[in-house]
Amino acid sequence: MAHTKLFIPGPIEVSEKTLKAFASPMMGHRGKGFQDLYAQVQPGLQKLFYTTQPVFVSTSSAWGVMEGSIRNLVSKKVLNCMSGAFSDKWYDVALKCGKQAEKLQVEWGQAITAAMIEAKIKTGEFDAVTLIHNETSTGTMNPLAEIAAMMKRYPEVHFIVDTVSSFTAVPIKFDELGIDVMLAGTQKALALPAGAAVFAVSEKAFKKAETLKDRGYYFDFLEFRKNHESNMTPTTPSISHFYALRSKIEDIMEEGMENRFARHLKNAEITRAWVKKNGFELFSEEGYASVSLTCVKNTKGVDVAKMIAALKSKYNCIIDGGYGKIKGTTFRISHMGDESTANIELLLSWLDDSLKSI
Amino acid sequence: MAHTKLFIPGPIEVSEKTLKAFASPMMGHRGKGFQDLYAQVQPGLQKLFYTTQPVFVSTSSAWGVMEGSIRNLVSKKVLNCMSGAFSDKWYDVALKCGKQAEKLQVEWGQAITAAMIEAKIKTGEFDAVTLIHNETSTGTMNPLAEIAAMMKRYPEVHFIVDTVSSFTAVPIKFDELGIDVMLAGTQKALALPAGAAVFAVSEKAFKKAETLKDRGYYFDFLEFRKNHESNMTPTTPSISHFYALRSKIEDIMEEGMENRFARHLKNAEITRAWVKKNGFELFSEEGYASVSLTCVKNTKGVDVAKMIAALKSKYNCIIDGGYGKIKGTTFRISHMGDESTANIELLLSWLDDSLKSI
Repeated sequence: MAHTKLFIPGPIEVSEKTLKAFASPMMGHRGKGFQDLYAQVQPGLQKLFYTTQPVFVSTSSAWGVMEGSIRNLVSKKVLNCMSGAFSDKWYDVALKCGKQAEKLQVEWGQAITAAMIEAKIKTGEFDAVTLIHNETSTGTMNPLAEIAAMMKRYPEVHFIVDTVSSFTAVPIKFDELGIDVMLAGTQKALALPAGAAVFAVSEKAFKKAETLKDRGYYFDFLEFRKNHESNMTPTTPSISHFYALRSKIEDIMEEGMENRFARHLKNAEITRAWVKKNGFELFSEEGYASVSLTCVKNTKGVDVAKMIAALKSKYNCIIDGGYGKIKGTTFRISHMGDESTANIELLLSWLDDSLKSI
Repeated sequence: MAHTKLFIPGPIEVSEKTLKAFASPMMGHRGKGFQDLYAQVQPGLQKLFYTTQPVFVSTSSAWGVMEGSIRNLVSKKVLNCMSGAFSDKWYDVALKCGKQAEKLQVEWGQAITAAMIEAKIKTGEFDAVTLIHNETSTGTMNPLAEIAAMMKRYPEVHFIVDTVSSFTAVPIKFDELGIDVMLAGTQKALALPAGAAVFAVSEKAFKKAETLKDRGYYFDFLEFRKNHESNMTPTTPSISHFYALRSKIEDIMEEGMENRFARHLKNAEITRAWVKKNGFELFSEEGYASVSLTCVKNTKGVDVAKMIAALKSKYNCIIDGGYGKIKGTTFRISHMGDESTANIELLLSWLDDSLKSI
């Protein structure tokens, strides 16, 4: 059966080159071969994170590192910024780790602002804030620069930022923004197979972790740091993801990071124009639409399942029919990763055709 | 550079067929395509576990599930059976999870017996025991049947068994033995790429997990069970490992499980004969040598690093030079996975040649 091309917001389409690198033969993960590979991906990862801190690769989905951030950093209480399916869930995960947690809940599609967070943390109750930069379920990108600037006035509150679906789609400067933990999945804009996550940790966060006694082992940030010193991971890594990362970093540096960001923005702009042209609306609050995917409010009452079926049957590709409680009343078009603007234009013309056909 | 063939005890050599399956294109993990794939691997996994319980795939190394077992099952105190690098470490991991833990330590290479465990757990202090069936660092296989039979007299004590390097090399009957958690890595006898783990959980263990309030999310056994009902995983899975698992299960069923076990035993026997013929000894206590790898006591004071260098340079393959504190005073030959007896005979002849050459 021919492969159905993915324009869903993760996993996204993975290139032949990446898949070939991914399927390289195994090697021992405690020997020089792996240490060399580990060292080779490090400078590229640091560039992509805009950091001089080590960047770690976790053999887990992003949720593992999201849970790890709670275990490594929260001793008092965490404030969970909630504005969609994934950010809402982080609160539940904090409770499941036996931690004190409080909600900062806004309507799905609304953005979280610095003022909202500050109103909570100025009470002094919190030692951590979780924020999903780009809420994938709603296609909303929170104003990270503004929030980060405010967070600098509260250095005792650790700033944990999930950039799962924005990493490498827009520049996110870990050091400059003063982020304490920043993490991303491999199956989003990085365009690697699912199954791993990348993350960086500030010195301040490492110090805090040292004071927590039940942070566990698998996601213990201090174990990652210790093993990093010899270019190794605490536990058996997904070596294949390291191969794929090396290949992808080559691609990104060849394209140029600025070009990559510009391409993502252009793809977003033409998709938003398509939304307007077709009489739909963006689901996101004005000014906060995501650059890596577009969540469309189905204002015309289109049969979304039918539209996607038409797209699949005629063009053998799919977009997403909306997540969770906004399934069908929204749909999502992913334009992140390797997609050229020409590809996105083609997809949008196919969507026009699919809309006409139903 | 030509790939160096692996005869180390994990990651082991992965076949071309498996790598090809592993590199299949991505698909959405919340759609029918993935649900079908999930359902396809389930009967095979249940056969390999000899269980009617669901078998889960964790996107993590085995350590994740080892930590998860502690978090899901230990409320009083865990007894960690320790006889090598990996089993020793499980005790540290239990402490890092903030749990009460006690050591049952024997010399590396010695086996853990039912009597040793019973002497501890009959005090009533414990609600869990961790056992590594096949300690990979020492090549020692603990007497699981005897231990499991004893454990049945202590149903309040949960029996957690790591079969990382014995799973699919010898039959391990989860239901019949009354194991509560059994787990294995993918990069050992299963001969898949590193990066995932498989595990099963007893009904009794699920019930216990329900009583623990800080078991977290990423390795929460109840989340795995809930998602399993719709053929899904709690978080984004390594879809590639599911593809590879499907391919490998085909291979195993085609060979026949009994044939596979017989092949592993034969490979172990010829390797042990080689050890004796060459005037070395087994590192393991008599009667407890592993079936999946052989740990050789370097009684002849051979320069192990030199021997492996000779093997690599002439035959482009490697064995392992000993783990941790027994590096150099032991070496390890892996004979698990896809290796035919002819392959192992060839390797042993190459080792003869390498020994002569140094």
